[in-house]
Amino acid sequence: MIRPFDPTQERMAILAERSFGVLQSKLAAALLRYQRPHIVCVIDSEHAGKDASEIVSVGNGVPVVADLDAAMAMEPTLLTLGITPPGGALPDFWREFIADALSRGLHVMSGLHQFLADDAQFAALARKSGSRIWDVRRPPRDLPIGTQRSREVKARRVLTVGSDCRTGKMITSLELDAGAQRRGWSSAFCATGQNGIMLSGRGIAVDAVVSDFVAGATEEIVLEGAATGADWLFVEGQGSLIHPAYSGVTLGLLHGTLPTDMILCHQPSRSVLARQTVPIPPLTDLVRLYETAAGWLLPSRVVGIALNTFDLSEADAHAAVRRVQDETELSATDPIRFGVDVLLDALEASS
Amino acid sequence: MIRPFDPTQERMAILAERSFGVLQSKLAAALLRYQRPHIVCVIDSEHAGKDASEIVSVGNGVPVVADLDAAMAMEPTLLTLGITPPGGALPDFWREFIADALSRGLHVMSGLHQFLADDAQFAALARKSGSRIWDVRRPPRDLPIGTQRSREVKARRVLTVGSDCRTGKMITSLELDAGAQRRGWSSAFCATGQNGIMLSGRGIAVDAVVSDFVAGATEEIVLEGAATGADWLFVEGQGSLIHPAYSGVTLGLLHGTLPTDMILCHQPSRSVLARQTVPIPPLTDLVRLYETAAGWLLPSRVVGIALNTFDLSEADAHAAVRRVQDETELSATDPIRFGVDVLLDALEASS
Repeated sequence: MIRPFDPTQERMAILAERSFGVLQSKLAAALLRYQRPHIVCVIDSEHAGKDASEIVSVGNGVPVVADLDAAMAMEPTLLTLGITPPGGALPDFWREFIADALSRGLHVMSGLHQFLADDAQFAALARKSGSRIWDVRRPPRDLPIGTQRSREVKARRVLTVGSDCRTGKMITSLELDAGAQRRGWSSAFCATGQNGIMLSGRGIAVDAVVSDFVAGATEEIVLEGAATGADWLFVEGQGSLIHPAYSGVTLGLLHGTLPTDMILCHQPSRSVLARQTVPIPPLTDLVRLYETAAGWLLPSRVVGIALNTFDLSEADAHAAVRRVQDETELSATDPIRFGVDVLLDALEASS
Repeated sequence: MIRPFDPTQERMAILAERSFGVLQSKLAAALLRYQRPHIVCVIDSEHAGKDASEIVSVGNGVPVVADLDAAMAMEPTLLTLGITPPGGALPDFWREFIADALSRGLHVMSGLHQFLADDAQFAALARKSGSRIWDVRRPPRDLPIGTQRSREVKARRVLTVGSDCRTGKMITSLELDAGAQRRGWSSAFCATGQNGIMLSGRGIAVDAVVSDFVAGATEEIVLEGAATGADWLFVEGQGSLIHPAYSGVTLGLLHGTLPTDMILCHQPSRSVLARQTVPIPPLTDLVRLYETAAGWLLPSRVVGIALNTFDLSEADAHAAVRRVQDETELSATDPIRFGVDVLLDALEASS
């Protein structure tokens, strides 16, 4: 896949104006967590002068600055849009930041639905300064259809699957990748959504692909991961097989990955999904459901459960982990709170 | 949904140059079967002078003519491209037919992947003559995501599902719709693919929709069908849940339709799918598989089996129907060879 630049080789300023520290800027926080060495500052006039870690508890030593003028003192080469608004459209007041950055020769990376490179003003500014725009949600041209190419990949393919959207699939895959590398395993993270792409510098946003090509796009992602030579591929899952809007994307991704192993991601405090219309079944049923759907093409096992307990007390989080372990007889953890060692142990044991 | 014209209100010439009667022109044959009253001629210089029914056994009284000049004597108002080539690209020698038709003020309807309206020459010719181009695969703008709106539809929603692609799902849905109307039932056919749209004059090609919107697009199709006031909606299925390339589209369509009933379509002579990589499981397993996946959101039953026996002798076709009935304990038929009465009986009995 062709990418205009490698964000992990750039000096990144994160634009989070008026939203650093709130849910809409979770990408900014994730960038600070996983790409800290490449980040020179966060732009948010409301928090200017603080350290990023004061706002989002990660990013120690990264200054928050008031505007692009202040950011330029850190010599950034890339401006990354650190929010993804619900509708995917570009907030008007961001236009001047982007135009200004392009004028100054900074690359711009965006996960918005609305492609910046298709904007005549932005395109002209980029041409003039020689900077480049990467709309990471834009699908590559000429995607193939799925033909089970992942089956031939020798690496273990670990897919995160979920009871719902936003249960921590991306974070779990990233934490598994980081934990595996700490153990000296050869591993790679495979991004399937815009935030994952911006965090890893590669991947395809499968939800932006024409439906006929979801499995084929996923195979491209898996093969690109395998081409790194990694023994373990941690593939970011999307949606849920029981979500009325996104189940098709989830199944295409599952059948494109043909995972050897799955990790089920769940938020214990959530019992209903999709605007409160679909009750989440017991986790044992969900485990069986994913194993069944994977098995239509290639048998696969759920080997562990990743819980997102951010809204629980420490005691309640521990209790939730124990309850889920008892219920499913699988290893469980909150990857952020308690680490992923039990999941890595379970993956290793299941080989 | 906005459509440039209603093909069932036009006088249609079908372009099948150099391919009438072969597999690539199965759309031409289907148009002659289901839209006979609106068709004035078929264009294919190799069969000029014959009656359409001599070539494809349907379309009695429709002349095959040599070129557009000859077709104009029948006063067509619409040229429909009667083939869908494998890659979806436009055969070069067809360009002149299309340009000529647009110059003469005929509308043009196309199911190609390559959109004719985006071609500068065609667009200019259409503007000049006032004719309109309908690329039926082009998705509507601003599709919603799926929110289970089909659940609120009072009509019975009968979805055709398949062991593979090209097992007769569209034809089965069309035959069920026609058979229901012969019985005096109030029914509508809901098209989900380009050929179905050209045959019925409405629908959305869900395989051309961005993956996030497949279920939402399907809901639009179902609601448009329900808006006709029909008691029975026969929804055209796509792909197969066990197809490595298209399973995601199939599940999105299934969860967008939330069928009350399903008809499983199968070609008895086929035992393996997807370039011979996926064995087709026993039909009883497939029945359970579709009922399971539908049931993740709304319980549904497979109430009958539609077999495509075009490549079997009459005796072998009868034997296949009996064998499948015994095996599945469900009503079975070949809709084209033996009609759909047993399926309609089964649907009526299952209410």
